[in-house]
Amino acid sequence: MPVEKKKVLVIGGGFGGVFAAKKLASGKDRFDVELINNNNYFVFQPLLPEVAAATIHSSDAVAPLRLLLRGIQIRQAEVMGVDFDKKTVTVVQGFRRVPVDLPYDELIIALGMSVDLKRFPGLPEHALTMKSLSDAHRLRTHVISCLEMADVAKEPDLKRELLTFVVVGAGFTGVETVAEVNDLIHRALKYYPNIKHEEIKVYLIEYANRILPTFPADLAEYATKRLRMQGIEVKTGIGTKSATSTAVELANGSVIPTRTIVATIGNGPHRLVESLNLGMQWGRIKTDRFMRVLGHDGIWAVGDAALIPLVEQPAEDPMHYAPQTAQFAVREGRQLADNLIAKVKGEELKPFAYTSKGSLASLGMSKAVAEVYGIKVSGFLAWLLWRGFYLSFLPGFATKVRVLVNWILNVFVPPNIALVQSAMPGTRYIHYRKGDKVLEPGMLIDGFYTVVKGELKLTIDNLETEEHFERTFGPGEHFGERVLLKSSLRTGLVVAREDSIVLWISQRDFMRFARAFPFLDTYFKDYIDRTFGPDMIFAPGSAERSHEIEPTH
Amino acid sequence: MPVEKKKVLVIGGGFGGVFAAKKLASGKDRFDVELINNNNYFVFQPLLPEVAAATIHSSDAVAPLRLLLRGIQIRQAEVMGVDFDKKTVTVVQGFRRVPVDLPYDELIIALGMSVDLKRFPGLPEHALTMKSLSDAHRLRTHVISCLEMADVAKEPDLKRELLTFVVVGAGFTGVETVAEVNDLIHRALKYYPNIKHEEIKVYLIEYANRILPTFPADLAEYATKRLRMQGIEVKTGIGTKSATSTAVELANGSVIPTRTIVATIGNGPHRLVESLNLGMQWGRIKTDRFMRVLGHDGIWAVGDAALIPLVEQPAEDPMHYAPQTAQFAVREGRQLADNLIAKVKGEELKPFAYTSKGSLASLGMSKAVAEVYGIKVSGFLAWLLWRGFYLSFLPGFATKVRVLVNWILNVFVPPNIALVQSAMPGTRYIHYRKGDKVLEPGMLIDGFYTVVKGELKLTIDNLETEEHFERTFGPGEHFGERVLLKSSLRTGLVVAREDSIVLWISQRDFMRFARAFPFLDTYFKDYIDRTFGPDMIFAPGSAERSHEIEPTH
Repeated sequence: MPVEKKKVLVIGGGFGGVFAAKKLASGKDRFDVELINNNNYFVFQPLLPEVAAATIHSSDAVAPLRLLLRGIQIRQAEVMGVDFDKKTVTVVQGFRRVPVDLPYDELIIALGMSVDLKRFPGLPEHALTMKSLSDAHRLRTHVISCLEMADVAKEPDLKRELLTFVVVGAGFTGVETVAEVNDLIHRALKYYPNIKHEEIKVYLIEYANRILPTFPADLAEYATKRLRMQGIEVKTGIGTKSATSTAVELANGSVIPTRTIVATIGNGPHRLVESLNLGMQWGRIKTDRFMRVLGHDGIWAVGDAALIPLVEQPAEDPMHYAPQTAQFAVREGRQLADNLIAKVKGEELKPFAYTSKGSLASLGMSKAVAEVYGIKVSGFLAWLLWRGFYLSFLPGFATKVRVLVNWILNVFVPPNIALVQSAMPGTRYIHYRKGDKVLEPGMLIDGFYTVVKGELKLTIDNLETEEHFERTFGPGEHFGERVLLKSSLRTGLVVAREDSIVLWISQRDFMRFARAFPFLDTYFKDYIDRTFGPDMIFAPGSAERSHEIEPTH
Repeated sequence: MPVEKKKVLVIGGGFGGVFAAKKLASGKDRFDVELINNNNYFVFQPLLPEVAAATIHSSDAVAPLRLLLRGIQIRQAEVMGVDFDKKTVTVVQGFRRVPVDLPYDELIIALGMSVDLKRFPGLPEHALTMKSLSDAHRLRTHVISCLEMADVAKEPDLKRELLTFVVVGAGFTGVETVAEVNDLIHRALKYYPNIKHEEIKVYLIEYANRILPTFPADLAEYATKRLRMQGIEVKTGIGTKSATSTAVELANGSVIPTRTIVATIGNGPHRLVESLNLGMQWGRIKTDRFMRVLGHDGIWAVGDAALIPLVEQPAEDPMHYAPQTAQFAVREGRQLADNLIAKVKGEELKPFAYTSKGSLASLGMSKAVAEVYGIKVSGFLAWLLWRGFYLSFLPGFATKVRVLVNWILNVFVPPNIALVQSAMPGTRYIHYRKGDKVLEPGMLIDGFYTVVKGELKLTIDNLETEEHFERTFGPGEHFGERVLLKSSLRTGLVVAREDSIVLWISQRDFMRFARAFPFLDTYFKDYIDRTFGPDMIFAPGSAERSHEIEPTH
């Protein structure tokens, strides 16, 4: 008589979820396994800095989940919620946004953690992160954009901002990112005749007193020295305070003008995990040593999202729990699968136990640091070890070949600086520090600005007619609505009179909205007449254009 | 005594502009050449279908302009206008949108042509195009998304729409695209256990009576047969009429339900070219046989943007002018550079003259058709020729190696289905045909809808309370504003009562706007009270959630 199969749902396709699902697939006669993830691919996180540096193609740092997990149902969908009583997971997928309830017998939560920068005003809006493939791709694009603009920039201040790059957080990701990005920039400079190497400033900012906290002190010191030799300014023992679109402010009050801030700090719980009302600590789900979520039968947690004790009586000490590394997540996933199989068979579960086999970090320029089975290696040998290890770990023969070919080619050819940009968002929040210029005379206005917090002042001086106009804007007040009437007018001077936040809406989206929605159109026409007068000439050299291509009505 | 250098501006970085600039660079002592393009790379157009099919990486179908054109100033910027009297080009670049005027002595217009689908209602909004690298990438992403959704789709109608793919236009690009996409889909199916090969429908729709008009008739016939053998439905002699998000309508009245329409038809002048008030015909700039723009000294045009006569007294016959192919653009660019050099030296200019050396088109599945120096080849040999030719043409040793490696790997490994999606736009126009369902009960509403044209009807039936609510919406009226109060409510039924167009604004962007802008917030709260009443229960099973992460104020 066939045993009735248990339905196992895995939510999250990182290291923990994938390795749990993979091992469960071997017990196919007992389990019906489905993995739900918001992307259809697995991200090989340790290679993201190489994607940012254009050393490897973005698609070679990921593997389709359907390739890794043959025979397991993969569902690309967004998880909306879990009903522990009904034992269902609600997902939304595709074009038709009809929620679907998926029943489960056993649920594995493997959602990892999210980036949480809320403690640092302006950082959520202005920092790039290094968590997902899009993040890495965006960083590469952004860095190359800065070089493109700096090459033709006339104003020295702007050029300096464009050529200053700040990475916040000197853990594993921060160090590899700063090293790889620094390499990319210096190697790319041969294409940018108007930029000199000495104009490049790259900072690594770390709150703790040393970089690479998980490495032995002497390796971290070696790494610091190498990074400095490559021209990177390593600043330890300094926290980060806030950011705007043109600067980052450190805890000691110093301000670094820059257009590039990469934040590799700030871990917070995944939005969904937070909403589940499970026992949590340090943003992670409390489990027992078998990875069962405390107080819930049939619910398991694994990977970064889980707080798995390594000892019988853990104290309030992170060292008593499994660390949040890929190495641990892989073993946790496998052990969890074994425990689930044991549970179904009525056998005894095994507590999770594992000791790190070592760490590796690339430092750019064919150098790395490594500690493997207690042996410390640094320099070129460590770098070869690093490459070999990741190559062996990469899923799929084709990916291995492509990555190897790229690594070899990279020795001989300059980096690929083709700038494949993704679409700009229609709205964004922008932070300004008191005194910052929001718009300068002569700029073409490209959107509609609504003040969320703070106060800004507009001044328009028409040198020809000697007209003078000024106005201040507080929360709920707005400027740029003239794009409605004359698209892309040149602006006056807008300065932040205090620390401020503004909601920016792109010209295209704002105009579409205002045109489609008569109420808004009327409001703005009245508003402009009332505020500026119907006949006012707005600053010298007003330019008009109409780039928008509207639909065929 | 050094000669004063002439400033030559090239606007546009396609085949014509790049090859003109490259040849001019050899006369470096006489010219100061600057090329302006909106991307910092050159697109190798003939490989775009391979990018769409995931056969090669997107970055291998492009080459950085700075790599191709060493020693020439490259400026990544948007050209806003040209002042022929002042001899300046106005550009806007970078974060600071201050327009910059660049003076020139000689100007080369090499802007190509744009896609213009205005004649086909709904096509501009709902068709994918194949002009740029992003287009190719978007098509690949879209096709794989459809497979992902079809694999878990429950409704047969939806599954059929998702698995139907329509390519409009059977020129060179259309034929290669339909063949490559068809290959991609069938090769990817091994990963999608719930989709059978016979469920896939791929159409190629052509207005003319045969495909590949530039090829000899027997080769076109061979190509048609090959495409049909691969399961593609080739329909010739049928025009395309209109499109919505769920169907394409043909001129004979038949409607093909589909979520994927690729338009390779519809050439129109570049926006900037159109605004220059030059003599135009068929959307192209009239030049003399030396590629000088008629009636303007120091202005040249090249490539697809230019209408270059091949004979002394051209009639109203496109055959009397240089065709719009890469092959011709390359020769035009070189000849233009020679003529410019001759002009400066006071030598005689040469009229443009060139005869095509042949054509190549890939048909997928290692088959192609080719005509080279009058010799016709088809099948595998033609395909090898095709690959060899493009490989030889690809710029840069590294790119050649990478593309070759990928082509070889492709024989052995299935296509990469990792779905790296780009951000969704904040607003878009959606076309509906009379009777189309816009929203269905149970869907989560994800945005704010304003009617631009037509009429829609909302019906909400609450089965529990037996409440019934209905309303019609005309131009300027809107629905979905309830997302303001309760995010992601389930909806009632909304049906188009006539052919309609709606402006959709994403929930995120709409809510940011409404929150920041008190006037709008008030309006909508009043509106909802007035329209639905304060106590109305909106359909069974209303779900709430709040996914939005707002900035740290």
